[in-house]
Amino acid sequence: MSDESILRDRLATCTRILAMQGLLGLFGHVSVYQPESRRILISPGGGGDKANMQAGDLAVIDPDGNLLDGTGPVPVEWPIHTSLHAARGDALAVAHLHAPYSTLFAIARHEFHPVTLQAAPFSGGLPVYPEAQLITTPDRGQRLVRLMENKRAVLLRAHGIAVIGGDIEEMLYASLVLEDDARKATQAAALGEIVSVTEEECHAFRAEMDLSYLARRAWDYFSQLERRWDRQAASAMGPLA
Amino acid sequence: MSDESILRDRLATCTRILAMQGLLGLFGHVSVYQPESRRILISPGGGGDKANMQAGDLAVIDPDGNLLDGTGPVPVEWPIHTSLHAARGDALAVAHLHAPYSTLFAIARHEFHPVTLQAAPFSGGLPVYPEAQLITTPDRGQRLVRLMENKRAVLLRAHGIAVIGGDIEEMLYASLVLEDDARKATQAAALGEIVSVTEEECHAFRAEMDLSYLARRAWDYFSQLERRWDRQAASAMGPLA
Amino acid sequence: MSDESILRDRLATCTRILAMQGLLGLFGHVSVYQPESRRILISPGGGGDKANMQAGDLAVIDPDGNLLDGTGPVPVEWPIHTSLHAARGDALAVAHLHAPYSTLFAIARHEFHPVTLQAAPFSGGLPVYPEAQLITTPDRGQRLVRLMENKRAVLLRAHGIAVIGGDIEEMLYASLVLEDDARKATQAAALGEIVSVTEEECHAFRAEMDLSYLARRAWDYFSQLERRWDRQAASAMGPLA
Amino acid sequence: MSDESILRDRLATCTRILAMQGLLGLFGHVSVYQPESRRILISPGGGGDKANMQAGDLAVIDPDGNLLDGTGPVPVEWPIHTSLHAARGDALAVAHLHAPYSTLFAIARHEFHPVTLQAAPFSGGLPVYPEAQLITTPDRGQRLVRLMENKRAVLLRAHGIAVIGGDIEEMLYASLVLEDDARKATQAAALGEIVSVTEEECHAFRAEMDLSYLARRAWDYFSQLERRWDRQAASAMGPLA
Repeated sequence: MSDESILRDRLATCTRILAMQGLLGLFGHVSVYQPESRRILISPGGGGDKANMQAGDLAVIDPDGNLLDGTGPVPVEWPIHTSLHAARGDALAVAHLHAPYSTLFAIARHEFHPVTLQAAPFSGGLPVYPEAQLITTPDRGQRLVRLMENKRAVLLRAHGIAVIGGDIEEMLYASLVLEDDARKATQAAALGEIVSVTEEECHAFRAEMDLSYLARRAWDYFSQLERRWDRQAASAMGPLA
Repeated sequence: MSDESILRDRLATCTRILAMQGLLGLFGHVSVYQPESRRILISPGGGGDKANMQAGDLAVIDPDGNLLDGTGPVPVEWPIHTSLHAARGDALAVAHLHAPYSTLFAIARHEFHPVTLQAAPFSGGLPVYPEAQLITTPDRGQRLVRLMENKRAVLLRAHGIAVIGGDIEEMLYASLVLEDDARKATQAAALGEIVSVTEEECHAFRAEMDLSYLARRAWDYFSQLERRWDRQAASAMGPLA
Repeated sequence: MSDESILRDRLATCTRILAMQGLLGLFGHVSVYQPESRRILISPGGGGDKANMQAGDLAVIDPDGNLLDGTGPVPVEWPIHTSLHAARGDALAVAHLHAPYSTLFAIARHEFHPVTLQAAPFSGGLPVYPEAQLITTPDRGQRLVRLMENKRAVLLRAHGIAVIGGDIEEMLYASLVLEDDARKATQAAALGEIVSVTEEECHAFRAEMDLSYLARRAWDYFSQLERRWDRQAASAMGPLA
Repeated sequence: MSDESILRDRLATCTRILAMQGLLGLFGHVSVYQPESRRILISPGGGGDKANMQAGDLAVIDPDGNLLDGTGPVPVEWPIHTSLHAARGDALAVAHLHAPYSTLFAIARHEFHPVTLQAAPFSGGLPVYPEAQLITTPDRGQRLVRLMENKRAVLLRAHGIAVIGGDIEEMLYASLVLEDDARKATQAAALGEIVSVTEEECHAFRAEMDLSYLARRAWDYFSQLERRWDRQAASAMGPLA
């Protein structure tokens, strides 16, 4: 397979895993950037069934959001993807999600800080894009990039999140651990004051456990589950995502 | 198909989607009004299996709640539907639901205000019908209409919600985003003060993203999921709805 | 079918519905009393699979807890059932459940009062059996009966609940609405002060909506769901029940 | 079957039950120690599909963490298992889990104490291993052992839990009741002050209900559910575990 074929397969699998995990459904999209060709593979917007997304369903856009290949539709928030891919060498993969628990930190006045070791990639906390608006223009995308500085994720006020990775596997793993950490922080808050993992502790954890290794382990695990997934709706309303 | 046949199909699908999403089961009903014929299609009350509702199972009532067609039973709270259909040109479709999270705002002393962009249709908050009683008479229906003013939904104290739409798709989408927003507000409240989306921000969002477009996108998405739904109970108690 | 055959079928169905709803699994049991013969049908204790309970699996005990028919085992907490059946003419059916949300009111210092109209049968609140112990003796059963006075349910501290009904359908419906009301009260509490339904409002609701009618409607609804239930575990830990 | 064959079957079943219950998936591992041969059976680390774990998939390690049998990989946190097996005669079975609710007590400043009778084995509360780090060395394992004293479980700050049992059945049951108790304590805390079960009450409960009996009853119950489990992912994100 060509490099793009491999990426297509992987991004489609990533889309289905995120759908299985309830992080991507009606809303949200994921992308991967190919620096040589400047082609961006992206899951289409609209009402498509992400749980059945196949490699051939993906769109290809250029750095200005023009559709190069596929039937689209291009997500209206394509500037999240193009801005991050253009600005950062460590953002070859980008997810925009309306993740149920992480988004709570874009609603409540409560700074996000990791409360579990797995969330060490988000050491030092996450910025919040303060305007309650979709990221539908390059200008808004630029503001998002500046606000993120060197962070791996950003909270979008009253809206959702964006998460980056060095590749698709890291973007998937980072999205999953951010959501899990946000869930645990929210639930633990009912019990009393919650204790964050310090930057020093995060640093020490990352020195012992390589993100890339963890990401590949999670990929193996969740792609097994996805292969045998029956793609049933959950018979009860989960959060919209 | 005649216009009524099309509406029958769509209202039955809407009923099944709401059942799939856990918003309509033992309780609740949805209706659509045909202004020319003054016929109201409505999902029957009683213990029927909403997850398997078909077009032919729907009842037809007149504006006074009399059964014109179908075997019923007519829901005892038919005045919710007849009052709203009669009073408002923007209420061609009406849902009455015991939605798990929205109903919490009819229990706690906490005003509902949107906390996500998707809930922009509920800008400015929602009124609460203050009496803990079913809406079983035209008088109660009239009080509900007056209390709602120009809002798209109303909270019924200790009971549930009513939501309107310009058509079935908008009523479905409005019900789903209201419930999702109520869930996020409730969960975020555990973290600290929650920040609403202002009326200006809601207005700006609505100017950028048409409700009708979003409603049709959600319809496409959820009707795909419903077609492959296995109609299984969830093997664990969800909230009664 | 004989009267006992009909009750057997119905109590087995009730057991399976409660298992489907996540209210009865590893723990809990239900019973029905036949005043003429003084025979008590009861679901067995132990590790049996309540989701597959059949009429022939039920035990029959006498008012002193002796096994008359079936292979048992008799639940160690049989005195909950025998005490209530003996003392109250309105307790022909009894459930003992470790229901996930109702039990929270037997843990937190927070009096239970209904917050939705459906919970009107529990008007005026519920007593708490204060000792953290199983109800394994007739003496403990008698204390439970005295504590309950004329209430339809009792909270057992650090343990679970007991709920009565005039027949199996009412006991099932009362258990479901108590659990749903407890869930809504718990979740609403995160938003702020919660508002109970007053005794007057409960009285007015009961005058408009007969418990027996609601119980039969719920029976029809949930027995349909149970018939098509695939009896799958939920692939995620629900509360133990 | 040889003794090791029996233990292999049982540990694989225990792994699948914990996977079914959402307590073991991407993370976590369980082990059982054979004192005569000093061989430790352990579920492998890495991205394997625990929901399908078979007896032949288990690894065997020695008390220093060396792989004796099987293809591994040996979990990086093997010192949790070897340290506890070596130090305590009542720790023939050990689980390390990232259990969703118990772990909240390793995040919030809130001491764990049992709030239900079932959690009586955890009478007097649980210690918290204070360092936010994986237990990847024998030194860390020793500190864990000293900190636990004679307790049946320990909370690992920002990480997860370790639970011991006299055999696999007790370790499974202890893990399930700890998680359920932690869930109820967390949810009840939203209602107000929560009331623990005192050490005296726990003692009295244990005198009436033998842990070994309860563990075997739970084993029968959950192994029935596991045999008919369809191993489907839950179509919605549960907590990572």
